[in-house]
Amino acid sequence: MPPRSASARDVLGYWVRLKRVEKGWSQERLAHECELDRTYVSSVERSQWNVSLASIERLASALGVEPWMLLVSPSITASEAGKLLSRKQHESS
Amino acid sequence: MPPRSASARDVLGYWVRLKRVEKGWSQERLAHECELDRTYVSSVERSQWNVSLASIERLASALGVEPWMLLVSPSITASEAGKLLSRKQHESS
Repeated sequence: MPPRSASARDVLGYWVRLKRVEKGWSQERLAHECELDRTYVSSVERSQWNVSLASIERLASALGVEPWMLLVSPSITASEAGKLLSRKQHESS
Repeated sequence: MPPRSASARDVLGYWVRLKRVEKGWSQERLAHECELDRTYVSSVERSQWNVSLASIERLASALGVEPWMLLVSPSITASEAGKLLSRKQHESS
């Protein structure tokens, strides 16, 4: 699991690989589902690519999650994430 | 506020503008803080750019939030977001 201080790129790579393996999919299969290249998926999982938002959306859609969920550090609990968001939403209302 | 079905690009544009205005910053100021171009910030706010993850990180850092928070649809409550994440984290454990 990447540390809490990990870059968004590391976090994205962690979740893409984890969610893909949970589905029992090869990198080829995920690439096919997203209409991306297999080497691109491999680079994302190894945190070697400065992914665009459109690609994050395609990956998230294929993996059955929302784009933002692929960027939440796995060391933050769901409850902590909810609290962080709640604080920001209150600031904005 | 963008609809729940809005693209990640629309959601990002919404939050960047909102958080910037909350800080009382001009687009020039935000661009300066991120070392990005003013026209780039303007494009992001108008959902006209397929932003890279590195730029999302720079914007989030300047605006004092985590990158994933800029992609959560504002029509999802903090509590709903926490539940969504909790379900996914349980699947992964």
